[in-house]
Amino acid sequence: MAEDHAFTTRVTCTAPVNIAVVKYWGKRDEQLILPINSSLSVTLHQDQLKTITTAAISRDFTEDRLWLNGKEEDIGHPRLQSCLREKGDLSEVARMGSGSACRSMFGGFVQWVMGEDADGKDSIAQQHRAQAVVPERMAQMIRHIQQRDFEAFGELTMKESNQFHATCLDTFPPIFYLNDISKQVVALVHRFNAHCGKTKVAYTFDAGPNAVLFMLEETVGEFVEVVKRSFPPKNNGDQFLKGLLVEAATPSEELLSAVVRDPSPGAIRYLLLTKPGPGPTLVENADSHLLGADGLLRSKSS
Amino acid sequence: MAEDHAFTTRVTCTAPVNIAVVKYWGKRDEQLILPINSSLSVTLHQDQLKTITTAAISRDFTEDRLWLNGKEEDIGHPRLQSCLREKGDLSEVARMGSGSACRSMFGGFVQWVMGEDADGKDSIAQQHRAQAVVPERMAQMIRHIQQRDFEAFGELTMKESNQFHATCLDTFPPIFYLNDISKQVVALVHRFNAHCGKTKVAYTFDAGPNAVLFMLEETVGEFVEVVKRSFPPKNNGDQFLKGLLVEAATPSEELLSAVVRDPSPGAIRYLLLTKPGPGPTLVENADSHLLGADGLLRSKSS
Repeated sequence: MAEDHAFTTRVTCTAPVNIAVVKYWGKRDEQLILPINSSLSVTLHQDQLKTITTAAISRDFTEDRLWLNGKEEDIGHPRLQSCLREKGDLSEVARMGSGSACRSMFGGFVQWVMGEDADGKDSIAQQHRAQAVVPERMAQMIRHIQQRDFEAFGELTMKESNQFHATCLDTFPPIFYLNDISKQVVALVHRFNAHCGKTKVAYTFDAGPNAVLFMLEETVGEFVEVVKRSFPPKNNGDQFLKGLLVEAATPSEELLSAVVRDPSPGAIRYLLLTKPGPGPTLVENADSHLLGADGLLRSKSS
Repeated sequence: MAEDHAFTTRVTCTAPVNIAVVKYWGKRDEQLILPINSSLSVTLHQDQLKTITTAAISRDFTEDRLWLNGKEEDIGHPRLQSCLREKGDLSEVARMGSGSACRSMFGGFVQWVMGEDADGKDSIAQQHRAQAVVPERMAQMIRHIQQRDFEAFGELTMKESNQFHATCLDTFPPIFYLNDISKQVVALVHRFNAHCGKTKVAYTFDAGPNAVLFMLEETVGEFVEVVKRSFPPKNNGDQFLKGLLVEAATPSEELLSAVVRDPSPGAIRYLLLTKPGPGPTLVENADSHLLGADGLLRSKSS
């Protein structure tokens, strides 16, 4: 059967997730997806979390088709079409799909520069943030990263997350991404830092209730234990920690009694431990292609 | 025994609750409790919700004493002391206890004018709100009230509530007053208004998760039914509606299927129906005094 498709070319690559520490909120151009403020993110390591994409092209194919998570999708969606039409560099293509996706085209800390100045067409709160707050925060964040100043990085990251969610709440109708568990995580981080007398853990939340926590390697073991006591794993205790291995730590009773309050069993499903990582990666192993030489989705077993 | 206290004078008065529709957030003077922005509230009717206070003075008394909710409190608290020392008008005294309490000294719609200009000593978000947003909103709100334009009043009330909570979230560490149930109420109000094609109900939240909903009398019966379907009363069905009587209404199935989603049984304990009302009122009935002629708290049965 492979002979029938001798001219099929397949390329498979993996791509990472990125987490913004200076957040993107508000477009100045809906078509081009240009932001009203610059943003800055950390690309997470693909050993723990990645997408896998295979593209196949062939003279024999008679139409464009697309599968997402194993399910065929309508190829006509405007966002998808604008990706397919785009001929610029890859980060421009990614941006057409989802603005902040363009930051995932690079590893480590990534800046998305807003480009030309924004017009005053958005909400007052968005404009105020874009014009009066973010430019200064971008400069601060870059300085903190360059100086490897985790405390300053962490505090600014938390302030940015809070202001992003405040801005969402100040749109009309309001948008809420944080839920009661998110708020418990925020309070726990603040109690932990207050007890330690410095910012050892920083939270950030994107467009959803899940917390992303930044900390230095030396803090991980202790904080994981604090999370386990605050959100005792339900049933799946052995599935609670995923990703990188953690060195077990035994927090002092003093720390635990200061920061652990009203445990919420089962409120957090799992922790995924990871670190910064590289941008998209080409997969050389032919067995990894998700599409067969016929251009169709391979079944899991093949 | 009453003869022993012939010179005791007792005064009892009731006072209302007020709900801000343009919110107070941020002080420019911590001692005097002067706000960084003007605010505007509705005084609620005391037939449904009120405080009762009795003051007794006598030459025979040897010390100041205070009971709050039937329990003796330390008279030395700084806020309380500044109320006792204050000799100005009553709204100034009230302000010393809790800033926004000064608005409860009057009935109906009440404006608390900020006075002289604020210094730039608060957070950027607070300053921005106080200087760029609130002055315009105060003028709009007053106009909407004068023109009896409920739709415009309601929309601005909701935007104000959201911006107030956004500002709280943008302080550091962040303050959250809304919980997941508050958010469900917000979403329900927006679905209801969207279905009706106009703002018939408006929410506002103060420093807590409880919703205050404004609506015209004609909307009450229908919306109460929508709330009952969305948050089915648990156990205490007959205690769910308190305060003013509601004329029963039967919302259309179309409305119910459009706005009622994933009912949360028991999530709301009760609805208290009320209306705007007058300011503090002197109680003439001598039996209403909470203190006896001896200056001590009367037991409930006496």
